[in-house]
Amino acid sequence: MAKHFADRMFDAIEAKQAPLCVGLDPMYERLPKQIREIAASNRAGLGEQAAAAREFCQSVIDIVAGQVPCVKLQSASFERCGPTGMRAYFEVADYAHEQGLLVIGDVKRADIGSTAEAYAAAHLEEVFIGEGKDERAVTLDAATVNPYFGKDGVQPFIETAKRGGQGVFVVVRTTNPSAKDFQDFKDAEERRVFERIGERVNDWANQEGCLGDCGYSLLGAVVAATYPEDTKLLRALMPNSLLLVPGVGAQGGSVDDATLAFHDDGWGALVTVSRSVIYAWERPEYQHLGEVNWEEAIEVAAIDMKAALAEALARRAATV
Amino acid sequence: MAKHFADRMFDAIEAKQAPLCVGLDPMYERLPKQIREIAASNRAGLGEQAAAAREFCQSVIDIVAGQVPCVKLQSASFERCGPTGMRAYFEVADYAHEQGLLVIGDVKRADIGSTAEAYAAAHLEEVFIGEGKDERAVTLDAATVNPYFGKDGVQPFIETAKRGGQGVFVVVRTTNPSAKDFQDFKDAEERRVFERIGERVNDWANQEGCLGDCGYSLLGAVVAATYPEDTKLLRALMPNSLLLVPGVGAQGGSVDDATLAFHDDGWGALVTVSRSVIYAWERPEYQHLGEVNWEEAIEVAAIDMKAALAEALARRAATV
Repeated sequence: MAKHFADRMFDAIEAKQAPLCVGLDPMYERLPKQIREIAASNRAGLGEQAAAAREFCQSVIDIVAGQVPCVKLQSASFERCGPTGMRAYFEVADYAHEQGLLVIGDVKRADIGSTAEAYAAAHLEEVFIGEGKDERAVTLDAATVNPYFGKDGVQPFIETAKRGGQGVFVVVRTTNPSAKDFQDFKDAEERRVFERIGERVNDWANQEGCLGDCGYSLLGAVVAATYPEDTKLLRALMPNSLLLVPGVGAQGGSVDDATLAFHDDGWGALVTVSRSVIYAWERPEYQHLGEVNWEEAIEVAAIDMKAALAEALARRAATV
Repeated sequence: MAKHFADRMFDAIEAKQAPLCVGLDPMYERLPKQIREIAASNRAGLGEQAAAAREFCQSVIDIVAGQVPCVKLQSASFERCGPTGMRAYFEVADYAHEQGLLVIGDVKRADIGSTAEAYAAAHLEEVFIGEGKDERAVTLDAATVNPYFGKDGVQPFIETAKRGGQGVFVVVRTTNPSAKDFQDFKDAEERRVFERIGERVNDWANQEGCLGDCGYSLLGAVVAATYPEDTKLLRALMPNSLLLVPGVGAQGGSVDDATLAFHDDGWGALVTVSRSVIYAWERPEYQHLGEVNWEEAIEVAAIDMKAALAEALARRAATV
């Protein structure tokens, strides 16, 4: 029986002293020129784009592995390269494991019944990569799930994760402007649909067999840092769930906003940063390094982000 | 510029005289023993499962191609076989096109911004299969999308579909019992969240450049047949959207319920049946044929379903 996901995540956060996840979101057009040039010969077909994505992600992993406990792979950017891209996705996950990182698959899947079971198996059970003697199994540590189907869409992921010692993060509150289209739909008591989802996630998170020794559940939630009042509310609604927190940086949330996803003891959340780190050389503050020094820009941005989050958590601790 | 999706679907429905789609949902454990035996040698690894899924789906396509306009591929059951499974998914889509069928990718993806764009590209743009001289492009005709992110999660699919002459179906009302968890969340006027989603889908469906010559939009909706009153309501809310209607058979909806998704003229919906046809030999009414005659069972079930739907539409037409 594998160790509980939340316990493993806690150990990893403690070891790296950072509740920080780097999101790997390799978009071909934004990759460093050097990587695109090596990968593309005459035309950058999907196979070449997949190879470039893999190479880039492996470099980022080498750079950040000493700094953070975890990476998050954005399925869409690999799927976009066709079946070869999905192979690269699992190869990158395998490489991250070799470097001692936990790996969250950001797949946002959901369906019902045996279809949801198939998605859970696809993303939380063993997948084989490599040929012949090099064949090996890769198993991701967690997956993100969309809540629209209700419990039927989430429970199969919970059952699969329970068996394998993995985690599941239900998308509760997203960072985008039109999140309000449906997530803010209000009932007669002015309660919004995402609050109802948070309550249900809390029920599901506390099912038998879901809590680890650390007190947190294998069932967490994705809660954007861009709506501070909602973050506070959702932190209170799901006390035993790890919150995965996007939205800092490019999407307008501050690190101080993100700290609202943590409990007063400084635990319970994992801030995830993607483009502001992995494409750091594009940002005004790191542009002086130049695209040619993209690796250094990523390293500096990751260290800066880690320090900024530590400072924000210290500020918050001082006010508790 | 490719012909508009709704116009192509209309032509295909007219040619086959059936607004019926067969869902391909190949689950290894349920495949006919003959196919499992050929595919699996010693152990049924993921690669062998993918090969079996492809072989089974190609057989089903051969059987139903003369009867129906369209097949729907369930992404989860292919993803479940790893990257090789996703290759099989596109190979099956290619095979269905060769047999003159339209192909809907049931992927239920959604995310925001450039991630949603990447998903749209992954599932509505060209993917290459085959090696060397045999390399060829496959492009699916439509994809299903989850609405939880609001317009930001759907619009990138619309834009991609507009360029390629494809369709998009937003999941509005699902067939599962816990669909009620969130889809039925009510506002102060007792209006439910799925109704709001239906209204928005209608707004988005009528954007410039979205309507075909037949008057229908490239943006459709998935509306389960299991809640007849809701089906009527959603048909009225989204007059220019094609409705993709699951839930008949195994999930408890009747063909008469399904006809509520059509306009009075008998157009505007596509009923989709999966397991009740592709695993027909398991059903009491076809069990006498035996698993060994699984192909005949599928053929008879498809023909029976087509006739039952035609009769139900005729009954409905008689009452209009």
